[in-house]
Amino acid sequence: MEFFKVVSPAEAMEAVQGFAPLPAEDAPAFEAVGRILAEDVVSPVDLPDFPRATMDGYAIRAADSFGAGESIPAYLDVVGQVPMGEAPSIRVGRGQAARMSTGGMLPEGADAVVMEEYTSRPDERTLEVRRPVSAGENVLAPGDDLRKGERILPAGSRLRSQDIGAFAGVGLTVLKVRRRPRVAILPTGDELVDPRVEPRPGQVRDINRFSLAAAVTEAGGLPATEDILPDDLPTIQARLREAVERADMVLISGGSSMGVRDHTVEAIDSLGEPGVLVHGISIKPGKPTIIGRIRRGGVDKAVVGIPGHPVSALMIFYAFVRPILRQLSGEAASFASEGGKVRARLARNLPSAPGREDLVRVTLERKDGSLIAHPLMGNSAMISTLTRADGFLTIPLEREGLPAGSEVQVTLYG
Amino acid sequence: MEFFKVVSPAEAMEAVQGFAPLPAEDAPAFEAVGRILAEDVVSPVDLPDFPRATMDGYAIRAADSFGAGESIPAYLDVVGQVPMGEAPSIRVGRGQAARMSTGGMLPEGADAVVMEEYTSRPDERTLEVRRPVSAGENVLAPGDDLRKGERILPAGSRLRSQDIGAFAGVGLTVLKVRRRPRVAILPTGDELVDPRVEPRPGQVRDINRFSLAAAVTEAGGLPATEDILPDDLPTIQARLREAVERADMVLISGGSSMGVRDHTVEAIDSLGEPGVLVHGISIKPGKPTIIGRIRRGGVDKAVVGIPGHPVSALMIFYAFVRPILRQLSGEAASFASEGGKVRARLARNLPSAPGREDLVRVTLERKDGSLIAHPLMGNSAMISTLTRADGFLTIPLEREGLPAGSEVQVTLYG
Repeated sequence: MEFFKVVSPAEAMEAVQGFAPLPAEDAPAFEAVGRILAEDVVSPVDLPDFPRATMDGYAIRAADSFGAGESIPAYLDVVGQVPMGEAPSIRVGRGQAARMSTGGMLPEGADAVVMEEYTSRPDERTLEVRRPVSAGENVLAPGDDLRKGERILPAGSRLRSQDIGAFAGVGLTVLKVRRRPRVAILPTGDELVDPRVEPRPGQVRDINRFSLAAAVTEAGGLPATEDILPDDLPTIQARLREAVERADMVLISGGSSMGVRDHTVEAIDSLGEPGVLVHGISIKPGKPTIIGRIRRGGVDKAVVGIPGHPVSALMIFYAFVRPILRQLSGEAASFASEGGKVRARLARNLPSAPGREDLVRVTLERKDGSLIAHPLMGNSAMISTLTRADGFLTIPLEREGLPAGSEVQVTLYG
Repeated sequence: MEFFKVVSPAEAMEAVQGFAPLPAEDAPAFEAVGRILAEDVVSPVDLPDFPRATMDGYAIRAADSFGAGESIPAYLDVVGQVPMGEAPSIRVGRGQAARMSTGGMLPEGADAVVMEEYTSRPDERTLEVRRPVSAGENVLAPGDDLRKGERILPAGSRLRSQDIGAFAGVGLTVLKVRRRPRVAILPTGDELVDPRVEPRPGQVRDINRFSLAAAVTEAGGLPATEDILPDDLPTIQARLREAVERADMVLISGGSSMGVRDHTVEAIDSLGEPGVLVHGISIKPGKPTIIGRIRRGGVDKAVVGIPGHPVSALMIFYAFVRPILRQLSGEAASFASEGGKVRARLARNLPSAPGREDLVRVTLERKDGSLIAHPLMGNSAMISTLTRADGFLTIPLEREGLPAGSEVQVTLYG
């Protein structure tokens, strides 16, 4: 078993860097979950575009509630009710109030909403207010969630449910996303048969074509599997050449027999420059991996010779092929792409009412090898607090908040 | 804001338990990545079904190499070469050897393969062996990977790339998987408009319909979104009734206005037993969540009233709706469903050659609140070592193995 020159895993990682992202294409925004943004997405409108109540209650002038309390309530005249989904025709003057629901448009003259639970109605026309509110309280001002021209997400983001929601909220129906990488999978090996065929003695059913196709699908690519190739140099060369034209990446699997391995190297090198860069990696399983690059139309296409053993094949896929797919799809590094849960330290004190479980959105920052969780404030009416978040943490029912520096578990979105 | 009776998150979790898995359906095995197995999958054949070389080298009788060493090599007669993909016609007798490639069928008479690198060929007919091999060395015996009748995966498994590979390897082309949950999404709110429409003052574009549909898709379900419902009890009742017939679960989103919330409760209760179980949860965001169950054809369908604020809507989806989807899809709890990376303690010493990175498959066990990683041995030719694994750990190039009890990071499959 002669190898070109066995390289370290770090050297092999260098050979799979620098692939250009694929061209952009249009995608319907509401079906784009999991796709990668090809450009920054900017809000075309203010969200909301009118002052909007975030609580059920009464629209008032905040100044009219100043000094109000349980023992000395303020009394206001109820001038009507704000209808949902319409610009209110009523106006709230000094000493007046209008009943309204969450999500309704603040009437002219009002600058705050007093929550229903701090009010009562001694009679039909009168409102009793038992707590002061400040100007802007329980109201989203125009652009509070997203401002016209503000970047919602940067290029390279993998789109999550909340991102789709934000696009709906600002009326974005079409997006530029990266084309999905097309991956040709060529199985080789004279001993292989299609799994639907009964093997004769000495033959085995092909595994790698199907496990690699599934792995490509899981990674967001489009696999194109081909029939089993015989161990014959001209055939391998011809099929590789076609595949390199058609696909963004080619995986040539197997060649567990000695001859095929050599033919794979020779065939890749015959396709063009720069050819085979790695032939053997000091990794187990997966030593006989081949990594090549072939320039076509100004871009490099990866051609990876995947070892024949099925375990080696998938491990090499995760280690060296998936990073190429990430580059082709233009995906920026993100916490979400790591998935699951991470431990982090809380950046600041986080108060919470006991008897209530709090789900707190956070952004994560990597610092000195560990993670810092920064709580995101903002109303739960604001979708932007989710598009900015990497994940969330939970303050349990029985806790009265968490001190800065606490170790917390963050569930990542996406 | 009057609530029925606000319950704790733990009580709300009880209300979303006990949903029966959906019926099974047939799926093509090679396209079933991400689907959930409805029954145990058993291997119909031995894999491999003949003794198979796992290394390039020479098929010999192990006894002929006993005592061989660098200074006193054993000399054997080379009687031929084993072709790939065929039963060899040659037989290996005492003192004989046949050249063969990885994946080839062991000739009759031979019981081991000596690796090429421990041999040389002083002449055409002679093999020099410089290391002894034991019987069975570098050979997979019939059924070593998977035995006929052996369970490959239990019911409830979410299928990963390696599982698809195993099905190919044993020739399984059709599987019983759970039908995907159908989730009807009904947006309500007089202030909402379709995002493709320019809102008038006081109107806002609907967010939740689209973010919830994306979240259902991400969770493996099939969303069916409906047009925005007006805040009108008979209409809500009629549309809910249709949706409960058609779908496995119904999400009725919004009703951020006071009236709709009451209508939602009344409409759910009017559909049948047991009706609304939860109306208000001590969680933030998401307090005004409604959880109902309606019995239809002997099974309970979940009807969840999702709060109108877009952040609350998604957080409640993750907390209470996704667990219902898991039950409907029959998915068993697994490490893979948690995704990402986890920390674990190594169950035993793990040797490794320096100068080589080792990727070691492990199964995980939860014990006293932490995780134990059990390394899986077995050849990288055996797909079953991947179907049994929860994930893998890496022994870096420079390390000569890891001692028992080491903290390791395990990358989860799937």
